[in-house]
Amino acid sequence: MFDSVEATHEISKAEYDAAEPKLRGELIDAQFDLLEAGTNSVVALILGMDVLGRSASAKQLMSWMDPRHIRAFAMVRPSDEERDRPRMWRYWRALPRKGRIGIFLSSWYEGPLSDRFMGRLDKAQYMARVDEICRFEEMLAHEGVQLLKFLFLMPPKQNLKVMKKLAKGGAAAWKVSDLEMETMKAYYKHNDRMLELAEELVGRTSTVHAPWIPVACADRRYRDLTVGRTVRDAIRGCLKGVSVAKPKADPDEWVPRTDINVLSTLDLSQSLERDDYKAQLKKEQKRLTKLVLGKKFENRALVTVFEGNDAAGKGGNIRRVVQALDPRMTRIIPIAAPSDEEKAQPYLWRFWRHIPPQGHVTIFDRSWYGRVLVERVEKFAAKPDWMRAYGEIRSFEQELADYGIIVMKFWLAVDKKEQYRRFKEREKVGYKRYKITEEDWRNRRKWNSYAKAVHDMVERTSTKNAPWTLIEANDKLFARIKVLKTINDRLEAEL
Amino acid sequence: MFDSVEATHEISKAEYDAAEPKLRGELIDAQFDLLEAGTNSVVALILGMDVLGRSASAKQLMSWMDPRHIRAFAMVRPSDEERDRPRMWRYWRALPRKGRIGIFLSSWYEGPLSDRFMGRLDKAQYMARVDEICRFEEMLAHEGVQLLKFLFLMPPKQNLKVMKKLAKGGAAAWKVSDLEMETMKAYYKHNDRMLELAEELVGRTSTVHAPWIPVACADRRYRDLTVGRTVRDAIRGCLKGVSVAKPKADPDEWVPRTDINVLSTLDLSQSLERDDYKAQLKKEQKRLTKLVLGKKFENRALVTVFEGNDAAGKGGNIRRVVQALDPRMTRIIPIAAPSDEEKAQPYLWRFWRHIPPQGHVTIFDRSWYGRVLVERVEKFAAKPDWMRAYGEIRSFEQELADYGIIVMKFWLAVDKKEQYRRFKEREKVGYKRYKITEEDWRNRRKWNSYAKAVHDMVERTSTKNAPWTLIEANDKLFARIKVLKTINDRLEAEL
Repeated sequence: MFDSVEATHEISKAEYDAAEPKLRGELIDAQFDLLEAGTNSVVALILGMDVLGRSASAKQLMSWMDPRHIRAFAMVRPSDEERDRPRMWRYWRALPRKGRIGIFLSSWYEGPLSDRFMGRLDKAQYMARVDEICRFEEMLAHEGVQLLKFLFLMPPKQNLKVMKKLAKGGAAAWKVSDLEMETMKAYYKHNDRMLELAEELVGRTSTVHAPWIPVACADRRYRDLTVGRTVRDAIRGCLKGVSVAKPKADPDEWVPRTDINVLSTLDLSQSLERDDYKAQLKKEQKRLTKLVLGKKFENRALVTVFEGNDAAGKGGNIRRVVQALDPRMTRIIPIAAPSDEEKAQPYLWRFWRHIPPQGHVTIFDRSWYGRVLVERVEKFAAKPDWMRAYGEIRSFEQELADYGIIVMKFWLAVDKKEQYRRFKEREKVGYKRYKITEEDWRNRRKWNSYAKAVHDMVERTSTKNAPWTLIEANDKLFARIKVLKTINDRLEAEL
Repeated sequence: MFDSVEATHEISKAEYDAAEPKLRGELIDAQFDLLEAGTNSVVALILGMDVLGRSASAKQLMSWMDPRHIRAFAMVRPSDEERDRPRMWRYWRALPRKGRIGIFLSSWYEGPLSDRFMGRLDKAQYMARVDEICRFEEMLAHEGVQLLKFLFLMPPKQNLKVMKKLAKGGAAAWKVSDLEMETMKAYYKHNDRMLELAEELVGRTSTVHAPWIPVACADRRYRDLTVGRTVRDAIRGCLKGVSVAKPKADPDEWVPRTDINVLSTLDLSQSLERDDYKAQLKKEQKRLTKLVLGKKFENRALVTVFEGNDAAGKGGNIRRVVQALDPRMTRIIPIAAPSDEEKAQPYLWRFWRHIPPQGHVTIFDRSWYGRVLVERVEKFAAKPDWMRAYGEIRSFEQELADYGIIVMKFWLAVDKKEQYRRFKEREKVGYKRYKITEEDWRNRRKWNSYAKAVHDMVERTSTKNAPWTLIEANDKLFARIKVLKTINDRLEAEL
């Protein structure tokens, strides 16, 4: 697969000098267009044993283009804040905004590759990680991130020479960390095994969205021109919108549908007497306090999502959960319109940034499900976009679960009549914070569309690790106890 | 000073039950107004040995108000990302956005207090830290942050009882960390010394902007009602804009002025031959590479600011510096219009977020000096605001310097004629990225106002630790070498 490495790719100095000024101009023009359009970002990652070449190439690119809008990352050792969160968190936080370019000199590939190489992952675990990468990259592609995955190839003999030079500590304009040196040496020692692994990884992750781009880098001039031209063409391409094929399949057309809606199976008449409620509230809150303060929760975390009909009582429910928690380990994230920094990132970015560290609890008041609820019903998101969201959300929640985060999702359901009663009541009370707006009435008129969206959402995203619980919320007291009990039962089972 | 602790502050259950519903309603209304206005944030910090009471009080406040817009912090041990930066960085990143409330159960007071208590700071160092705090809080007050500093007081005897209960590990709904326990015990052992220190600290940091609010907290009901009422009144007060007195002094009126401008002292005719330039560039870039890759730079950092006339060549200068640096340790921050997340924070927040960790370099292309340059000249900032900026900026840069960050600031000066030539040239070349806009011509017409602003800026913010260097930039080659040399000489002196 990597045989081409041995082939000669040489560019003479004269040829290079003739080509370089033109390329430089084209690159900086392309970069400026990217910045001006603000619709896409570019993530270039470089994999390969040629550690010097990787850095040198990044430097060359930054010198050709305007370095103010490019950022290079080398993330050898995660910080403790990163270690405290699912492994993809550190890459999410490093993603460039739309209009910008990020160069990842180390990326989501190094971890699985070295873990497999060192035998820390068995075949099945490794394949799961590779699969996760493919889904992550597909999502990025759909979200306007132009991925460029360069694979730097160098004949082993030449690589050895570089390694020796490095070991001596040359005058290179960058640092090679101890960890990098160590890894390189280990790889070099078992070169065949590494090549085999890399070959397999590259094969499995060369997707239509993000193919690998092998670059023979024995010749510096060939390497740099190739990288430069690829970046130029990729920017031009993504600005023309040619990079991503939108999914065409529409489950609505072929998934057999009945008229049964999960919501219609609920018995909304369930209720609780106030005395009974008070006793149970006290009991369940105490239980929750004990569970999250226990030793076993220390290296876990809890993420709960509250969605529901307008006026179904999300706030009141959240309040009862929070009362049982240490405020220092708890955060509530109310999801409203995204900030402009959030809009400049892939959709899930604004949720990833709030993922709690170990030992903490984050409660989302509305969530990433906005895309398949309000954005779907109100047509804020195009159909292909909310359609792919189901799978992306499943992957996202699976990543949280894999790290030990306990994910729970609640849909608070009231019926149309009860919602009307609450709207009218709120209009009467007139507390500003409970104001019923024209938008609430408008949403209400789309009751059936929302019900359909909720049904699809529950059906497609309720998983073993991140289940939906439907809460009969016509009676507020009943709902609160059911939420607390559900959380406690799950925590008890998990811890 | 704390004698009132011993006095009885008791509120009966009946009295509490009568007052509580009204207070709750007022608090949540006030909170909603705060959120809707979006002009101020509230930072409530609680200091005091009563660790249980501090947490309980925060919890009560969050339960009265809408907890979705309140966040509690307890920052006992800094993360490694925090340890890698100046000490105030972790508080800056934790500041609530406008409209929100932050409760700091541990704050910028604990560090200096315990360091002094343990003898890790001598009297002079300690006073410098206290002074830093006062300036920080004054700045917050001016920037729309309503500070509430609660001092929780409890008779020693009662405190001992609480401590004993804690030691046994009660059923409290929060955790007391090992570190907190240790500190508490040490404090308790030397109670008199602690009281003396606290008394002094409170005296020195009770400013008009942020007075301490002593709360006798032996009685839970008294404590909670007092805190609740104070928060309510403070929100009402800051929304009416009564909290901050704008500075009235106007240096323009009493500082003796001559017609001498620092810019007029420059010899802009200085230039460099291309051959000479090439040789020196190579030499200075090599020197820079060596300096920042050296062992001694590992626990330092470099922050450079580039300001200058339009078309003075900031970009080209930055590029020459960057060429000598490892891209993985370097970030360039182009300062443009603030994002909405940045607008919801004190002015300096958007610069603090980019302060590099140890061993790294951050280059600001335009900077926090915008406030005393473009914002002053274009009247985007009110006079009292840009006037206080000089002092705030000095404090900011001093904090960086105290941590070992090397701060350097460059003003690239061209004369009016040279600028005209470059504008015309750019219009001819027509590269989009160099487009000369109507705004550039408009700025040019305000040449003298800018010159005056630059003079004041240099005069008021050029300090030993963060000096301005004026760069004669009519000749681009001369400018680039002078910038590189200045950086290198400073690094050599510092490392």
